[in-house]
Amino acid sequence: MAVAEKDFAKQLDSKVRLVNKELGRILSTPGWVASELKRPVRYALEGPGKRIRSAVVLWCCELVAGKVNRNALTAAAAIEMVHTYSLIHDDLPAMDDDDYRRGRLTCHRKFDEATAILTGDALLTLAFELLAKEINEPKAAVKLIIELAEAAGPAGMVAGQKADLEAENGRVNKETLQRIHTNKTAKMFRCAAAMGGICGSTMLTTGGGANERQLKRLREYGLKIGLGFQIADDILDVSASSVQLGKTSGKDVKQGKATYPAIVGLEKSRGLAEKLAKEATAALKPFGKNADVLRELTKSLSNRTK
Amino acid sequence: MAVAEKDFAKQLDSKVRLVNKELGRILSTPGWVASELKRPVRYALEGPGKRIRSAVVLWCCELVAGKVNRNALTAAAAIEMVHTYSLIHDDLPAMDDDDYRRGRLTCHRKFDEATAILTGDALLTLAFELLAKEINEPKAAVKLIIELAEAAGPAGMVAGQKADLEAENGRVNKETLQRIHTNKTAKMFRCAAAMGGICGSTMLTTGGGANERQLKRLREYGLKIGLGFQIADDILDVSASSVQLGKTSGKDVKQGKATYPAIVGLEKSRGLAEKLAKEATAALKPFGKNADVLRELTKSLSNRTK
Repeated sequence: MAVAEKDFAKQLDSKVRLVNKELGRILSTPGWVASELKRPVRYALEGPGKRIRSAVVLWCCELVAGKVNRNALTAAAAIEMVHTYSLIHDDLPAMDDDDYRRGRLTCHRKFDEATAILTGDALLTLAFELLAKEINEPKAAVKLIIELAEAAGPAGMVAGQKADLEAENGRVNKETLQRIHTNKTAKMFRCAAAMGGICGSTMLTTGGGANERQLKRLREYGLKIGLGFQIADDILDVSASSVQLGKTSGKDVKQGKATYPAIVGLEKSRGLAEKLAKEATAALKPFGKNADVLRELTKSLSNRTK
Repeated sequence: MAVAEKDFAKQLDSKVRLVNKELGRILSTPGWVASELKRPVRYALEGPGKRIRSAVVLWCCELVAGKVNRNALTAAAAIEMVHTYSLIHDDLPAMDDDDYRRGRLTCHRKFDEATAILTGDALLTLAFELLAKEINEPKAAVKLIIELAEAAGPAGMVAGQKADLEAENGRVNKETLQRIHTNKTAKMFRCAAAMGGICGSTMLTTGGGANERQLKRLREYGLKIGLGFQIADDILDVSASSVQLGKTSGKDVKQGKATYPAIVGLEKSRGLAEKLAKEATAALKPFGKNADVLRELTKSLSNRTK
């Protein structure tokens, strides 16, 4: 491992710890989750997730405000909840029908289908409740809720998942595939970057923080790494083993999913992922050296093996 | 039909029209719902729902502010979306497995299970997006989002549904049953009343509107009619026909659900519903004659036949 890589791994690890601690705090606060749902909600949130989206929130807050603040921790937990809910529902028998996720039984296999549906519903609702209750300025709370709902809702992730299912075993062109991946995955990354920028701004009462131009750059960065992340995911499905992935590999092909390797071929997919990584890096230019960790993230996402 | 009843039916009808018009406006506004989800989302929202929860929002706004305002219409649409999502998910094969709802095929029977899961997810997210984008004061938006998330989320409706499934074919005592019904149904009614009161307050920039004491009364009213509504529902399941209900009757008994008739008997259930109606009416006392329509609603809910 090169020095930069080692250093990046350490920095990611420290963010993962912060997010896990924040999720743990919420799970152990009485009142948020009723006794009936404690076990499945805890099981879902305590899975060994990569926490990339929430790390992006924290790093983007740091980038504009110099450090992670309380609002950014809340936003990171909220986006992680929404991401976790989406995995639980996507894994259901009626959707992708997966038995394993992050190396453990999926929620409906560990418990049952009804519990998995309700646990997803619970996490989605809780994410908005958390933002509304814990963000320290109503204006910022509203902004963050809009970002998250737009990314996750019927014009974002949910629409992407629907289109993804519709595209199974059919032929879609490159434009449709890009739309699916943008909705299904990239908008949540864009949201993570924007949420971080917004949270960074809440700390500085004397102005400063992310201005609209900076936010635009962060959004651009998030969208590009998100799309790159999904293409890398498609590539991994055909090239990695189930043990590496912690979930069943080769499933996309078996299910006739619309993926980049299937539509444009493996080599072109790799080229596209590289191009997106370059564009993401370019979007960070105005932030100078402070954005190095986000550049390292971009590299690690395009080179990832799991 | 007595004069009061006729008049009430007319007043309810005018509120149902307002809510349906508001939902129609949202459905036809570009950007809220992506093309992939338009059909199932429209199907779900255009079902002939009773719109009781949203009517309560509008009436409670009228009660404290003298008329329905723009914020109340938004809040009414949001609570109707959350209610509709909960029905779609509850009807799924893994949950109550219902083929009919409101006299039409349930969402998963009309489309498929994956579509039904995603349509529910879409409506839940859209409700929060709507409140965050359209309520004209960030402070009020945050308050309304908290009300809705607390009522619908992992310490409310979702927990109630989970406990309801757990209680199937088991023996629960009266206290547990009341907790289930409170979480599953009554909190959403309490939320509707509170949302109306909060929206009423947003109109009056010179103070006035619902104060904390009035909001407490409205919450009390909502909780009592909500619990009464669920008991009436339990009673109808054993006494009404499927044609009357627009959904399969006798299902609770068949599924071994924990219901009031099953736990305390039919006569005691009727007595309890009457007691709750009286308590709901008592909570309205400080509002005088202006609350007459809410009193009529209480009556109609305890006497309902569908």
